[in-house]
Amino acid sequence: MLSKNTVKFIKSLHQKKYRTESGMFFVEGEKSVLEVLDSDFLIEKLFITESFEQKHFTLLKSSSGSVEIVTQNQLEQIGQFQSNDSALALVKMKVNQAFNPSPGEWILALDEIRDPGNLGTIIRIADWYGIKRLVFSLHTAEFYNPKVIQATMGSFTRVEFFYEDLAKVFNRWKLPVYGAFLDGKNIHSLQNVQPGVILMGNESNGISQESGTWVTEKVTIPGFGQAESLNVAIATAIICDNFKRLSQ
Amino acid sequence: MLSKNTVKFIKSLHQKKYRTESGMFFVEGEKSVLEVLDSDFLIEKLFITESFEQKHFTLLKSSSGSVEIVTQNQLEQIGQFQSNDSALALVKMKVNQAFNPSPGEWILALDEIRDPGNLGTIIRIADWYGIKRLVFSLHTAEFYNPKVIQATMGSFTRVEFFYEDLAKVFNRWKLPVYGAFLDGKNIHSLQNVQPGVILMGNESNGISQESGTWVTEKVTIPGFGQAESLNVAIATAIICDNFKRLSQ
Repeated sequence: MLSKNTVKFIKSLHQKKYRTESGMFFVEGEKSVLEVLDSDFLIEKLFITESFEQKHFTLLKSSSGSVEIVTQNQLEQIGQFQSNDSALALVKMKVNQAFNPSPGEWILALDEIRDPGNLGTIIRIADWYGIKRLVFSLHTAEFYNPKVIQATMGSFTRVEFFYEDLAKVFNRWKLPVYGAFLDGKNIHSLQNVQPGVILMGNESNGISQESGTWVTEKVTIPGFGQAESLNVAIATAIICDNFKRLSQ
Repeated sequence: MLSKNTVKFIKSLHQKKYRTESGMFFVEGEKSVLEVLDSDFLIEKLFITESFEQKHFTLLKSSSGSVEIVTQNQLEQIGQFQSNDSALALVKMKVNQAFNPSPGEWILALDEIRDPGNLGTIIRIADWYGIKRLVFSLHTAEFYNPKVIQATMGSFTRVEFFYEDLAKVFNRWKLPVYGAFLDGKNIHSLQNVQPGVILMGNESNGISQESGTWVTEKVTIPGFGQAESLNVAIATAIICDNFKRLSQ
């Protein structure tokens, strides 16, 4: 039986303010909860259905958090999924610290990506391409937003990140910064690329003027038709694919 | 003043059944309505706010359809957008007929793409890469679904398509069919690609067995991390980008 206080607390975590205050967030759905169980995140508490418990009995034994059996209805009441017949995990945020790239490492930098679905999809793409570390401008969407977590499809467990003024970061790192612009060099014609930072800009306004001054090479995805633009997550995928191809 | 019958009719077009019966669909939001005004689609009627009329006076003079001035509230009542302060167009569907590819043409084939957002995003990507003609398996999402139209960002005005059993189509065309699989040839290592059909499969199950028998080359997007998969629209973008690069 879920207590009123538990329901109230988890529902408060739908809002950034209470996530920040408590240092907690939640993860829902079978796939994502299994990924977080298999990660180094600290699970405070697991809310699971009987069928989830039966299916994943062995994995659950190794989890440190306490477990409460709930109904599908209760999961849907506390989470954001319209339908959830498996699990919801209450998880501790990690302390995220600034890092310095290793030689040969690709880093993804996001300049004011505002849509949580885009941010989550981009994190999944970064994970696909083996880009494990990201840096976000201060007003980029919040990593622990449930819509971000959902869109990463579990990839949130495998990346490191921090939020900072990008100009300061680029100044400190002194690495090549490849910025996605509409008037850059055709990414298909690049050669001999040195690993560095891939910088993607805001959904409407692109890369800000301030971050843009640190871009060492403007790159563009060649268009062959009349569409005016590509969604930023799609563009990120294409650019990561090209840089990975070029730097093998 | 919108009549009750008008409201009822446009709201009926939220459902596929009534779109099919009437041969009509609707397009909403400033960007998409401007694209449809600038296309060869026949507009039956335009519902626009006063501010949209003032802003686009010249373009509106050239439109064949009748125009009714409405409020933002009314637009939001009849359409699907949460917020729409510009326009909604009632548009006639085109008659879509099977086509045969021209020499050197790339065609995109979709095998049971079910999510309207994915279909719309894929159409936008096809338009970006100059792929103007698509073929859809019989249970792929409906082109005129409002969520598809919205996700294309206007690109729906620039593509041709038809729905048919893909195996029959591939048998007729006798072209190279490049199918996206998880165990295909690394797309970065392909060379000397002959234009043909790019085949993308269902969100959960991939390419069906029946369509798969017509695939002449299985291709795979190389992964460098631990993400298990990419969203089908993302994968389509990366594959189109590689084939366009390889066939220039």
